[in-house]
Amino acid sequence: MGLATELDAFFNPRSIAVVGVSHHPDKIGRVIYDRLLNNRRQGVLRADVYPVNPELKELYGHRVFSSLSEINEEIDLVVIALPASQVPQAILEAGRNGAKAAIVVSGGFSEVGNDQLTESLRRAIKQSGLRVLGPNTVGVMDSYTGVNTFFTREVKAFSDGRTAQSFIFPGKGNVSIVSQSGALAHYVLDTLGERGVGVRAVACVGNQIDVSMSELLSYFANDALTSVVVVYVEGVRHGREFLNSFLELRRNGKQIVVLKAGRTLAGKRTAYTHTASMAGEWETYVGAFKQAGAVVVDNVKELAEVSLALSLQKPPRGRRLAILTNAGGFSVIASDLAQANGLEVIQLPEAAIEKMERLKREGRIPPVAVTTNPVDLSGSADSAAFEEAYRVISESGVFDMHLLMPFHVPPMMDERVVPKLAEIARSSGATVVGCDTGDTEWSATMRALMIKNGIPAYKDMEDAIRVLTLISDIFTPSRKSFPVYEARSGEALEPIPRAHLIELIRKHGIQVAREEVVFTEDDAVEAAERIGYPVVMKIASERIPHKTDVGGVQLGIADRAQVLRAFNKLAGIAEKLGLSDKGVVVQETVRGVELILGSKVDETFGPTVTIGIGGVLTEVIRDFITFVSPVQDDEADYMLSRLRLSKLLDGFRGYPPVDRKALREAIINFSKILVENPSIAQLEINPLMAYGERIVAVDIRGWRYSPP
Amino acid sequence: MGLATELDAFFNPRSIAVVGVSHHPDKIGRVIYDRLLNNRRQGVLRADVYPVNPELKELYGHRVFSSLSEINEEIDLVVIALPASQVPQAILEAGRNGAKAAIVVSGGFSEVGNDQLTESLRRAIKQSGLRVLGPNTVGVMDSYTGVNTFFTREVKAFSDGRTAQSFIFPGKGNVSIVSQSGALAHYVLDTLGERGVGVRAVACVGNQIDVSMSELLSYFANDALTSVVVVYVEGVRHGREFLNSFLELRRNGKQIVVLKAGRTLAGKRTAYTHTASMAGEWETYVGAFKQAGAVVVDNVKELAEVSLALSLQKPPRGRRLAILTNAGGFSVIASDLAQANGLEVIQLPEAAIEKMERLKREGRIPPVAVTTNPVDLSGSADSAAFEEAYRVISESGVFDMHLLMPFHVPPMMDERVVPKLAEIARSSGATVVGCDTGDTEWSATMRALMIKNGIPAYKDMEDAIRVLTLISDIFTPSRKSFPVYEARSGEALEPIPRAHLIELIRKHGIQVAREEVVFTEDDAVEAAERIGYPVVMKIASERIPHKTDVGGVQLGIADRAQVLRAFNKLAGIAEKLGLSDKGVVVQETVRGVELILGSKVDETFGPTVTIGIGGVLTEVIRDFITFVSPVQDDEADYMLSRLRLSKLLDGFRGYPPVDRKALREAIINFSKILVENPSIAQLEINPLMAYGERIVAVDIRGWRYSPP
Repeated sequence: MGLATELDAFFNPRSIAVVGVSHHPDKIGRVIYDRLLNNRRQGVLRADVYPVNPELKELYGHRVFSSLSEINEEIDLVVIALPASQVPQAILEAGRNGAKAAIVVSGGFSEVGNDQLTESLRRAIKQSGLRVLGPNTVGVMDSYTGVNTFFTREVKAFSDGRTAQSFIFPGKGNVSIVSQSGALAHYVLDTLGERGVGVRAVACVGNQIDVSMSELLSYFANDALTSVVVVYVEGVRHGREFLNSFLELRRNGKQIVVLKAGRTLAGKRTAYTHTASMAGEWETYVGAFKQAGAVVVDNVKELAEVSLALSLQKPPRGRRLAILTNAGGFSVIASDLAQANGLEVIQLPEAAIEKMERLKREGRIPPVAVTTNPVDLSGSADSAAFEEAYRVISESGVFDMHLLMPFHVPPMMDERVVPKLAEIARSSGATVVGCDTGDTEWSATMRALMIKNGIPAYKDMEDAIRVLTLISDIFTPSRKSFPVYEARSGEALEPIPRAHLIELIRKHGIQVAREEVVFTEDDAVEAAERIGYPVVMKIASERIPHKTDVGGVQLGIADRAQVLRAFNKLAGIAEKLGLSDKGVVVQETVRGVELILGSKVDETFGPTVTIGIGGVLTEVIRDFITFVSPVQDDEADYMLSRLRLSKLLDGFRGYPPVDRKALREAIINFSKILVENPSIAQLEINPLMAYGERIVAVDIRGWRYSPP
Repeated sequence: MGLATELDAFFNPRSIAVVGVSHHPDKIGRVIYDRLLNNRRQGVLRADVYPVNPELKELYGHRVFSSLSEINEEIDLVVIALPASQVPQAILEAGRNGAKAAIVVSGGFSEVGNDQLTESLRRAIKQSGLRVLGPNTVGVMDSYTGVNTFFTREVKAFSDGRTAQSFIFPGKGNVSIVSQSGALAHYVLDTLGERGVGVRAVACVGNQIDVSMSELLSYFANDALTSVVVVYVEGVRHGREFLNSFLELRRNGKQIVVLKAGRTLAGKRTAYTHTASMAGEWETYVGAFKQAGAVVVDNVKELAEVSLALSLQKPPRGRRLAILTNAGGFSVIASDLAQANGLEVIQLPEAAIEKMERLKREGRIPPVAVTTNPVDLSGSADSAAFEEAYRVISESGVFDMHLLMPFHVPPMMDERVVPKLAEIARSSGATVVGCDTGDTEWSATMRALMIKNGIPAYKDMEDAIRVLTLISDIFTPSRKSFPVYEARSGEALEPIPRAHLIELIRKHGIQVAREEVVFTEDDAVEAAERIGYPVVMKIASERIPHKTDVGGVQLGIADRAQVLRAFNKLAGIAEKLGLSDKGVVVQETVRGVELILGSKVDETFGPTVTIGIGGVLTEVIRDFITFVSPVQDDEADYMLSRLRLSKLLDGFRGYPPVDRKALREAIINFSKILVENPSIAQLEINPLMAYGERIVAVDIRGWRYSPP
């Protein structure tokens, strides 16, 4: 076996040396050596394994080497479990002895603030030419080659000495895992194993001093055994490279399921101390990950459940769901949940209902069966009836998804139904998931049989429906890559002058509300009369980001007297705030659906664009989505479809439907501005009013990097 | 054992006769008899059991009676498993023989449209004086007395003849279940059993021809063994009686967990107002149940998980959560989820942090421990360290809830920590839940041990946090009862004249925006000038419920010319719509937070009141809550606190904070209107503007029952 790529040395080495194998059976290096030796004895691992420790001579009858240079064979992978201070030296020695890769299990580097030692490790890596995973990592587990550096014991003793399983590695499968936390990798493995999801390989990146998550993702993108990649991320350094590895995965036909930690501030704080990696703005991560074609989940359970589905089934083409069961109450609740999640429990076609009725007349399904969708065959249905009814649903061809719930308790239902259903499911072209409830051998058998036959099966129908919802929401990227952008941060910002902002927005094809800046009462009245009452009047200064908060915006100014009053009020506020710029903006009143369109340079992903509904309410409703700039038409379309309040765009309270093409163009053009103008840090149109095909910027704010 | 109440005959009879015991071992009556006999042999059931079937002489060496009258002993409970047509006769016979209660397992009545047979059963019940559960029900299961009429087999054969458990009844506990579906009761029992929740008793109500859900709830309210009542509801007939049984439960110290089916069923009735269309059947049920002190859950899994928590712990006093773990990644995700759910992961007090640091210095907790909240002791923590750290958290006294996650995988952690933690938890005064992940004997042991020691334990931290969220949201009713109200429905409605509406609202202490109704251009201009520009102008007719949809509302009218233009436009619209009422309303422009306040007569619960945020946006945002009228101050306060956007009331974009007391008073006063005026069917203020202490009705609509 040759090494196809550099990273093959981690997953498929011809030989492994474990440096730091202790005489004490509970020490990490020893646990790793024991497991590798065991895997080799059982024929799972083919690589040779060499223990290294200058203070030991022999272990289990094998020679223990006092140093790497004593081993006469070629070593591909070195696993290092030494005190942190000895690690740089060990890396140099591994390099001198021709090793290709090292996993540094040892902790004690930047995660505890030891930056000096980290620097010396970095130098050693550079000098040695090794590829290094870690430090501070549990390393790698490969179900196919038997490489496993996880130092978790599978059996552990209770306090009375009795032992029991404390951890189980899942079997072989097509799911690979890349994780930024060892504890989380254990949790994910446990949860996958429990649900019968097999695993291809796992890599925990630790402090990522050398091998990055992106590289590992790219490795699995080119791995024929991997169909689904599960990712646990706390934070990434080079956002766009990371996204490009997602694109590569999707291009190569793999699905991606991601959990991003650090959703809230307290979480962020903990993430910082946990792996010394900065967790970025959660919403930006989530948006960017979706844009790159990943399913973003909320928790570890969803991570496992979605992985199970995608390891066996393709994502659905649409949201039309058929539900088939033999338990009445289940169909009501499943249908409730599906619709509450935005799935479409559409009616069976007439011809299919006719077929069902014929089955009833012929005594092939129970006479009390409900033959609408959900189809409820009742507890008196047997396996054959379930199969017949499913064939009718499948052949109707109108559903994107089938949810099959053959409840095992009624006497006539037995496990023989499962392979029959699976056969119909395979030729249906639909995405099929199953559900059977309960914690008995019967229910476990039903679920295991479904999974064995290619139907992801869940114990709780709410989980089945949540999974269908998540996988019917996957974006398929058409772009080849995200252009890489050098992020800037920590620089001082200054506001961009109003006139410049307006010019910038207009130049990018977005209309701006008619307005004039005035400095005297008389000019204000003249401007208002030119524009037409009622007008809006506001402080012109760009130094005030939230003008409404200081009373700096006056709406519905209706006549000369009100213009004068407003002018003096605004001038007074400007005076009180000590603004050098005493100008007042007089602006037309614009109607429509209130939107917000913003752009900023994100520290991780560079320029991003955010569209939201609700104008000033957006931040309270939190109905927005952020993508990486510049966006394309299919991306802008997906963004709009993801807004919870997107139905407001279809015509609301007398407003005409918003021209979605015009709105998409505005988003696309706006998203280019920061990319084309690297001096701009933040830009926002709020509100952006959409009325039919008229998309009008009412207020614009922008901040640029101050020249040093 | 005497019978304390009528319903005791169902749960604690001295003797049971099973009518319809077949020679065939799979027939329902036989399955029930076999189980009862078995329970009696095992000493679980103390009641005597008599089989009845005229065609059998003997079973298992016991005499089979040809009729009830042959049995010389007194019979408390008769279980009837006969063809539907024979049931009325059997009821009459049971009555003649002095039976007190009957469970009618047989189906074939109104659920299949057999109304005649239903009527004859009803007459038989009346004549016999029996209390009857069913028909069409699996009946009753009592873990303490051994009464069990569930005809589910616990063991079932696979197709190859091998048998396995297909259903398990949970053990004894303090959770009682009242369900409107047998299938759902099985699912709930299964899910409770799986999570180690013991059950006091179950009653499935079937068609409720006699014994109602309310009566059963009231029975469990007075049952010393019941602490938590789980309810599955499809629909109820007498809404307020039902709510009163909830109040009785809460008054007697029991908690209630409810699942309501039919979330997405289309509303049956015409809704004339936004609130009437938003507050459909499901939303009204959910609001009313919360008002009566229940936890309303979304699915069966939550039903079981919340029951587990409430069967062992009291609901928390507040939302402040402490998290303690030995697995870093867990603390990040748990903290993320908790905050996303609105729980407060507040900082540990300084003194507690100081104590933690001292423990570090003394080597009693690991030096790498993170001693903020979440507290992450790291994988190197042992049981003693976990206990020490928990004591500091508990003694700090600032947390309402503790989430303990002693992950079992790290080598130093063992099961002895659990009883120690439980001891601290008991004296903490906080609500404590635990979590350990995995599907191994170790993790199962950790969870089972926590539950045995009074700490509800979950496999997935997202479940633990969801449970804490739900139980920290329980309303404690102070009212003694809901006044019962005769519901009206199906009657024709007519709009209430504008002047009458305004008078009604003013009389109930709510300000109405200044307005005049005009019929000529000149009057319109005069009115506008009296009120002050800018004004709002709209069609006066009450026949148009959604005026903005037809262009019938003109905002920001700023001068004489605009008044004239608006007047003519509105007159044109009125003409086009063929309105007899050509009046135009000229109204002051009112600012503030837009709310919606509505009231309607619900078919199930009578008059209800709905408050929502967002004005015209409310129905899109769906941020509203519906309670039963009239509401009290504590109820209005809870309603406001449940609105997702309630922070808008705390001062938003330059608006002063809304005076909550004034707003509560408006809600309370408004909720009385329909109660005091039974002729009114629907009433709505939309928008209701709240600005500081000024709460102003801008537009009012109302519909009353048309005189026949």
